[in-house]
Amino acid sequence: MEHIRTPKVENVHMIDRLTPRKSTVGTLYLSSTHTIFVENSEARKETWVLHSLVYNVERFPTNPSGSPLIIRCKNFHVYRLLIPQERDCLDVLASLTRLSRPECYGELFCFSFNPNLDKELREKAWGFIDLKAEFNRMGIPSNLWHVTAANHEYRASICRSSQPLSGFSARSSDDEQMLQAIMKSNPISEFMYVVDTRPKLNAMANRAAGKGYENEDHYTNIKLQFIGIENIHVMRNSQQKLIDVGELAAPSMSDFLWGLENSGWLKHIKAVLDAGVFIAKAVAEDGVSVLVHCSDGWDRTAQACSVASVLLDPYYRTIKGLMVLIEKDWVSFGHKFSHRYAHLDGDPKEVSPVMDQFLECVWQLMQQFPCAFEFNERFLIQLHTHIYSCQYGNFIGNCQKERRDLRLQERTHSLWPHLWENRAEYTNPLYRTDHSQTQGVLKPLTTAYCFKFWKGMYGRAEKSVASHQSPADCLNAVREESQQLEEELSAHQERLAQLKEKKTSGGRKKTNKLSERVRRPIPIESKLSSPLDYFTTTRSEKHTPSFTLPLELAAPPKNGDPDDLSTCSDFESGVADLSSRSSSAGDDAKDPDSDEAVKTNV
Amino acid sequence: MEHIRTPKVENVHMIDRLTPRKSTVGTLYLSSTHTIFVENSEARKETWVLHSLVYNVERFPTNPSGSPLIIRCKNFHVYRLLIPQERDCLDVLASLTRLSRPECYGELFCFSFNPNLDKELREKAWGFIDLKAEFNRMGIPSNLWHVTAANHEYRASICRSSQPLSGFSARSSDDEQMLQAIMKSNPISEFMYVVDTRPKLNAMANRAAGKGYENEDHYTNIKLQFIGIENIHVMRNSQQKLIDVGELAAPSMSDFLWGLENSGWLKHIKAVLDAGVFIAKAVAEDGVSVLVHCSDGWDRTAQACSVASVLLDPYYRTIKGLMVLIEKDWVSFGHKFSHRYAHLDGDPKEVSPVMDQFLECVWQLMQQFPCAFEFNERFLIQLHTHIYSCQYGNFIGNCQKERRDLRLQERTHSLWPHLWENRAEYTNPLYRTDHSQTQGVLKPLTTAYCFKFWKGMYGRAEKSVASHQSPADCLNAVREESQQLEEELSAHQERLAQLKEKKTSGGRKKTNKLSERVRRPIPIESKLSSPLDYFTTTRSEKHTPSFTLPLELAAPPKNGDPDDLSTCSDFESGVADLSSRSSSAGDDAKDPDSDEAVKTNV
Repeated sequence: MEHIRTPKVENVHMIDRLTPRKSTVGTLYLSSTHTIFVENSEARKETWVLHSLVYNVERFPTNPSGSPLIIRCKNFHVYRLLIPQERDCLDVLASLTRLSRPECYGELFCFSFNPNLDKELREKAWGFIDLKAEFNRMGIPSNLWHVTAANHEYRASICRSSQPLSGFSARSSDDEQMLQAIMKSNPISEFMYVVDTRPKLNAMANRAAGKGYENEDHYTNIKLQFIGIENIHVMRNSQQKLIDVGELAAPSMSDFLWGLENSGWLKHIKAVLDAGVFIAKAVAEDGVSVLVHCSDGWDRTAQACSVASVLLDPYYRTIKGLMVLIEKDWVSFGHKFSHRYAHLDGDPKEVSPVMDQFLECVWQLMQQFPCAFEFNERFLIQLHTHIYSCQYGNFIGNCQKERRDLRLQERTHSLWPHLWENRAEYTNPLYRTDHSQTQGVLKPLTTAYCFKFWKGMYGRAEKSVASHQSPADCLNAVREESQQLEEELSAHQERLAQLKEKKTSGGRKKTNKLSERVRRPIPIESKLSSPLDYFTTTRSEKHTPSFTLPLELAAPPKNGDPDDLSTCSDFESGVADLSSRSSSAGDDAKDPDSDEAVKTNV
Repeated sequence: MEHIRTPKVENVHMIDRLTPRKSTVGTLYLSSTHTIFVENSEARKETWVLHSLVYNVERFPTNPSGSPLIIRCKNFHVYRLLIPQERDCLDVLASLTRLSRPECYGELFCFSFNPNLDKELREKAWGFIDLKAEFNRMGIPSNLWHVTAANHEYRASICRSSQPLSGFSARSSDDEQMLQAIMKSNPISEFMYVVDTRPKLNAMANRAAGKGYENEDHYTNIKLQFIGIENIHVMRNSQQKLIDVGELAAPSMSDFLWGLENSGWLKHIKAVLDAGVFIAKAVAEDGVSVLVHCSDGWDRTAQACSVASVLLDPYYRTIKGLMVLIEKDWVSFGHKFSHRYAHLDGDPKEVSPVMDQFLECVWQLMQQFPCAFEFNERFLIQLHTHIYSCQYGNFIGNCQKERRDLRLQERTHSLWPHLWENRAEYTNPLYRTDHSQTQGVLKPLTTAYCFKFWKGMYGRAEKSVASHQSPADCLNAVREESQQLEEELSAHQERLAQLKEKKTSGGRKKTNKLSERVRRPIPIESKLSSPLDYFTTTRSEKHTPSFTLPLELAAPPKNGDPDDLSTCSDFESGVADLSSRSSSAGDDAKDPDSDEAVKTNV
């Protein structure tokens, strides 16, 4: 509150750079948690931007039409504002700069976010993902071992560690014995792989600090393999270049392709995927145990192991399974979430898109195996947003101890049950549990031209550049039609059985009517009005008639529907809105407002 | 026949460059129309390569293991052979070089291709696409006018011409009056566009030859617009670079992206699409008439007008509609098919991938509007193959007169009915006639990152690099399941009606069994065995038990099933095989052979 210099600015322009005629005028509000832009139009459309999702705020020199301000978000949304008075612009800039950089954990949004769950429900929600159950599922007698199901068959293991303290000549007999024990636990193989996910040069350089990599002479029957994933600094710079490409206003083909190549991003994604493929192949095809490490074991190692897990074990390709994998290989393994995703104002050199890359590897796999994943792109984008948003407690802190000390389970909410409740939105209609691709080990091609620019993630700088028509949404319509048909059929079967049982005859009814109903195509437009909308952060007041702006309060609301006030860039809250509207407005799927909402947001 | 120096070579290796262990040994046969490779394996798998699809044959220096020979096809398939004896390799090279370069029309495959249709059927087939009916459909009183349906509403027209003979100062009052007449035919607009699809510099250069472009001072109320599509020579070189990229063995990400950028290919595709978008927007949104020209009016003009037609008129997004469009805007408008696609051994400077680019524009649109097209990618690839293959008479010659003089309708067969009969293979399961995207004008984004490398077309140099799992095939399975459900439902309804009518009761039957059958998922593997297979040119002898190799004959077969012998890279003939097999083998969808076929061909 004390950081908000001005809670309200009128006559602000929200600029659409690609189609200036789509630019709008409205009022800008600053609350303690969100920036809110309310259009002056009759629809009073709102755009909510969560402060903790703001990556930076940049002001440009004042010109005769006003002071331009650009808000860039960690989920790659960009908002361009034009504020009439320079004084107001400076105030907004100062406020947002401070609000988007919390200085301590206590300032994070998750500690004020209140989705109206009682204590018992909240605690139960934290138990939604149970790693002990996961280790049971994996058939592990002790949690020193991480074995996938594919693994089980070959009695091979994937282990993770940091680099050994080998330096130029040191050795550790404990370490050597440990590897020997791992090797021996797999009687079908006479050697094991030690996968060093770093470029060899980097590993060698680490020897100067007494670290480095395994000396093959000192270890019995290990094969050392370097993979060459670059370090967090290279990745941070690469992503920044990629973001710049995504922000280009109307790039020539040459600018785009050159920028994509120059960013090196897809090369890095390929390196991570190649690492996963190497490990998965060693385990599934060769039956060889693998120890994976990088320098610390919490970035590249997490990436390589979790990609391998997705390739090996179909469970991790389900909605629940991906949650479990992230909880197991990232959260509980000490991935430094708060450092990597800049939750607090801190060392910018600690920031790096490590999870971004893992999620993109999964997305690239989805492009090659469209039937193998239970979840869709939207699920990955939603996960990405919440890794950065600090709205839920799951990804706060840098290790388990820090999370325990922060008492996150008592003070914040868990993301997982929330996503699970809304899983219908995240389901891939092509997923078939009986499909061979779903059941087996995935063997992706990693030839360069199998990789694509992730438009859904990095092409969001302009409102106009959202994809026109999502295949997933069309598919959902087809799937729903199938379900409807199945239900009709069941009803018929029941009726048939009843008729036979009663052996009586009523008046002859027309069956044509039913037939028409069954064959009537579902109006896709109405179905699309909500799913198409998943890039959006806007809502129309018409859809939330009970809504009161929190700005006069200048404090987060303690009562009322918190979803309305707090979940700005949350797609699922938009869904809740639409369904409540739908229940009041009846089944009028062709509500012109919903169409309009689509048009203005796409 | 006289060109075949050796009809048979044994112990030839077919090399799979990416996965050498997938290489096979077999016998190579040369017939008058095809190169055929028959594996020594028990399955006796066959690979058929049509001579007229061969782009070039290249021999490499003999090494201890044999003489390497590479056959590159116009549809971007590449076959790598290793022939034990240099002498045989030289013979095959000489034979293939001659056979793949016919010197006169009479040598073309279409004149010997005989799909066993009687005369009457063949003649009827040539009437399948009726342009008069198309002009009727367009509501045109005279065939001087080409107006789309969207057009109709605005009374605006798209006209095509070659460049005016303006030179530096000449003018043609006839031409000026013609444009004035076109302009006046559209009372709602006070001007008309003249779209010159060339780069302005090229148009200016043409003035030195007494040609050039319209002088706006001499024409009343025209607006001249240059689009900047490069000429056929630039395009030919660009595609060659793109093909080289697709042929790279294991390109680094940088090599691939740099190669893609350096080829300029996507830039050119964007230029063609931009031209279509400009014209479509002028007609549909502004209601302005458009005259489109380039230098001659048969390459860039055809591209721009047909892309605009696809954007404006949903009919051209159907299977039949695309045939009509190609017949109307390309075949009957004098596109020089035989020159552009090197049907005969001739001037290499006349060759250019003009149709390739149009088909790719349609493909790029399909990526943005997956529900708007009745056909799938396979249809475009099949069209592409047949534009080059000379198997059917449709695309032979360089203008209508040449086709008439060749008496093609009497001597060859038409592709269109053949594609139409097999349209189930070419249908996009996402297409919905009631969808807004299907009905309206398409407004694609042409931002650089909306364009993709067409892997299905240009990534075919290696057998292993076919896509793993086509979403379209999965969708087809879902669609078929829906259809099956609908049929079940209809059957139930009929039965219900019968029961009611008869008012009698039979023994009570179990309905559970039916219910199980309905809910039983369709085994996707079996469904995929044929559709997945559409890059392949191989067949297993098991599937064609009545098959006899034509090689002893060394002449095209006059009797027997011509599809078996002549349609090598024809997907649909493979389908015919499968269906005949299926009818003899019953409904055993889990035939292990079909699975194997998938594995070996993907």
